Amino acid sequence: MAQNNKEEPTVEELLAKAKKPEKISPKLHKFYEGKVQVMPKCSISSTDDFAIWYTPGVAAACRDIVNNPSKSFELTNRWNYVAVVTDGSRVLGLGDIGPEAAMPVMEGKALLFKYLGGVDAFPICLQTKNPREIVRTCKLLEPTFGGINLEDISKPKCFQVLEDTRNQLEIPVWHDDQQGTATVILAGLINSFKIVGKKPKETLITLVGSGSANIRTAYVLMRWGIKPGNIIMVDTKGIIHSKREDITKEIDPWKYDLTQKTNSEHRIGDISKAFKGVDAVVAASRPGPNTIRKEWITTMADKSIVFACANPIPEIWPWEAKKGGAQIIATGRSDFPNQVNNSLGFPAIFRGVLDVKAKTVTDDMCIAAATELALFAEKRGINEKNILPTMDEWEVFPREAVACAIKSIEQGVARIKPSKQELFEQASKIIQNARKSTKLLMKNNLIKQPPFKTDL
Amino acid sequence: MAQNNKEEPTVEELLAKAKKPEKISPKLHKFYEGKVQVMPKCSISSTDDFAIWYTPGVAAACRDIVNNPSKSFELTNRWNYVAVVTDGSRVLGLGDIGPEAAMPVMEGKALLFKYLGGVDAFPICLQTKNPREIVRTCKLLEPTFGGINLEDISKPKCFQVLEDTRNQLEIPVWHDDQQGTATVILAGLINSFKIVGKKPKETLITLVGSGSANIRTAYVLMRWGIKPGNIIMVDTKGIIHSKREDITKEIDPWKYDLTQKTNSEHRIGDISKAFKGVDAVVAASRPGPNTIRKEWITTMADKSIVFACANPIPEIWPWEAKKGGAQIIATGRSDFPNQVNNSLGFPAIFRGVLDVKAKTVTDDMCIAAATELALFAEKRGINEKNILPTMDEWEVFPREAVACAIKSIEQGVARIKPSKQELFEQASKIIQNARKSTKLLMKNNLIKQPPFKTDL
Repeated sequence: MAQNNKEEPTVEELLAKAKKPEKISPKLHKFYEGKVQVMPKCSISSTDDFAIWYTPGVAAACRDIVNNPSKSFELTNRWNYVAVVTDGSRVLGLGDIGPEAAMPVMEGKALLFKYLGGVDAFPICLQTKNPREIVRTCKLLEPTFGGINLEDISKPKCFQVLEDTRNQLEIPVWHDDQQGTATVILAGLINSFKIVGKKPKETLITLVGSGSANIRTAYVLMRWGIKPGNIIMVDTKGIIHSKREDITKEIDPWKYDLTQKTNSEHRIGDISKAFKGVDAVVAASRPGPNTIRKEWITTMADKSIVFACANPIPEIWPWEAKKGGAQIIATGRSDFPNQVNNSLGFPAIFRGVLDVKAKTVTDDMCIAAATELALFAEKRGINEKNILPTMDEWEVFPREAVACAIKSIEQGVARIKPSKQELFEQASKIIQNARKSTKLLMKNNLIKQPPFKTDL
Repeated sequence: MAQNNKEEPTVEELLAKAKKPEKISPKLHKFYEGKVQVMPKCSISSTDDFAIWYTPGVAAACRDIVNNPSKSFELTNRWNYVAVVTDGSRVLGLGDIGPEAAMPVMEGKALLFKYLGGVDAFPICLQTKNPREIVRTCKLLEPTFGGINLEDISKPKCFQVLEDTRNQLEIPVWHDDQQGTATVILAGLINSFKIVGKKPKETLITLVGSGSANIRTAYVLMRWGIKPGNIIMVDTKGIIHSKREDITKEIDPWKYDLTQKTNSEHRIGDISKAFKGVDAVVAASRPGPNTIRKEWITTMADKSIVFACANPIPEIWPWEAKKGGAQIIATGRSDFPNQVNNSLGFPAIFRGVLDVKAKTVTDDMCIAAATELALFAEKRGINEKNILPTMDEWEVFPREAVACAIKSIEQGVARIKPSKQELFEQASKIIQNARKSTKLLMKNNLIKQPPFKTDL
């Protein structure tokens, strides 16, 4: 990210770069015909072993579970299965593309779950848009899974689906577009405030965009300690405040609730009014580059922080935000510094809750994970252009998993209570096993080499 | 299987042997904590590749499917995913043990699917006993899977669930306890009749037990060419005939239908009356060893054939059947000659229908598979004690898959139409890949060695 015109890439160059993965992606998807597969996990020396793994031997394992249902978390892989559930109603920036077209995303998610978190996630794309039916299906699937990751479900139904599913199931359920994004944003903010030397509890934070990510981010920030009144939310119609008659309890109870809690100074007006004097802006709205303007940034407080998370083009180009005076700028892109990347959250958080066979996942666990993410980066050194760990720092995942597992135990929702050391060793081993297995299969051509160079 | 008293194992010895897998099975289940896992299927050279497999690149694959929904069978692993669906209402011989306790069986099934057929099967154990809800859930899951294997669902609802699911879904659905068992029984009968030199169409066949297996076997035998009137069915109350008032259309329409079609000589009475003069008896009823008596076998036609398929103890010990005069005897056990083993059916039949992305699976495909199973054995040599291939003859699986795929193409339900040679190469490669991957992971200790010797 350059500050002078000479070093700046042109918008055309950046758009072209952003389009490269999209250009080669369908060819590679066609070549591999799928991104995850099912693989044996137990030893098979000869077909004689099937008398143990299947009939007649398996009957004894079944009987053990009949006598003690919690053993389904011990005698099967249920404890490590996560369903990646969607109705395809809001997939990436593509909108309501339905369950078939959502499959590549859910398979990709399963791939990340395994490679980064050692979690055996399986795509479940449902042919219904009915929130009650989505909830019911999750309930019916409960005996098979140790957790459920809701994904790409449109709002406001995603809030109700999450709430009802959590109430009805005794396994962790979360919606990655809510909790996952909120977790990584919080981690980024924690370190940003450290760098600029501000006390988070005294800051004013504006959230641009009031979709599932920022609505949950608001709640997580409040839970973490930001004063509700110090949060200013913006939607397509401007600043959200208690007099907004278009936001009703009936249509969107969560957003309505925030009209009552946030923005204690009763700021009103369009998006431009939401920047004045605020310490941090977190945008999770629509792709830019002109959703946010440089001039608005100039009105922010000193040492301002701007997270422009829209993909593939951030709400404002980083160098524009810099020119406007922002000190720390983060985006959703991997080719700019400070990527706010959901993949830093879900694989490790589920690793953590699965390893203690937790009954739920709470916002407090997300906060514990965010705190650990931030701490990990701080320990190895942070600066304005390096506020968060990256996916390549694999050691962060087991640490984050442990933080989450320990919080589950503290909150009394863990079915088992291993020690911190045991948790760390288990998480590390499972994650490394996933990576080693992948490498080994690739090396032996049982996962094929790509048909052409894939450098991006 | 010995014919003189000296060589015969004692009943106690056989029971002890039958119990060994059950004795070590829970320990091994606990040791491995699951029998199948999810594994990457595509190359991951670095985390940069996630820009192709996940956001932003994946969006292009999604858009391709939006434009052409059938591409979900090409750009994702859907084409090779099979859901192993149960409500746990009739698991093995254990009865209605529920979905949690059914998990070890469904995971075992997924293991066999992969190892023998290269099929990526995933257990789906549902928390409902309501047949309408089971059907509806299968419909909701359709966009994720290339096929559905119903398993261990109690009768008579299993018939309705199968019929409704087949009508509503455009992917192959079958109930392994019906079609799978019927396929292998038919293959065994085909070769048995060859050995004893009888023309199948002129034979009289008794089916002992009128559960899902034998009811479907009756239909498959009729479809194959056995005259309906030449089939005699027996249930717990005796021979089934058209005057049986306890079998009504309302309670069990499939069984009722058979009261009208079978038993043209209007034989009546208890089970003992069902043996007289018949050429073959296929028992799929309750564990023996005295469900069928030697004295009844003596009343059968010359060169009689007896399949006693109950597990773990056949309806009659093979040596008793032999003493009664049976020439060919098959059981469900792997430690006796002529094992009637479902695992010879479902992995290859699904391999076949998946490889042509078929819209359904028909009884005709089961017959094609059975014919190929029988032919494979005949070519390498059959005799009284060797009527069927075993799981160790891995080459039989791709051949059977091809037979099934070709039948799908003939019947106009295949979405693609590869050549026979292409089908054979693809099926062989996929199955060998599954086996090689498993061996490789075991060799490198990424699938652990068992904690003790598991010889049975």
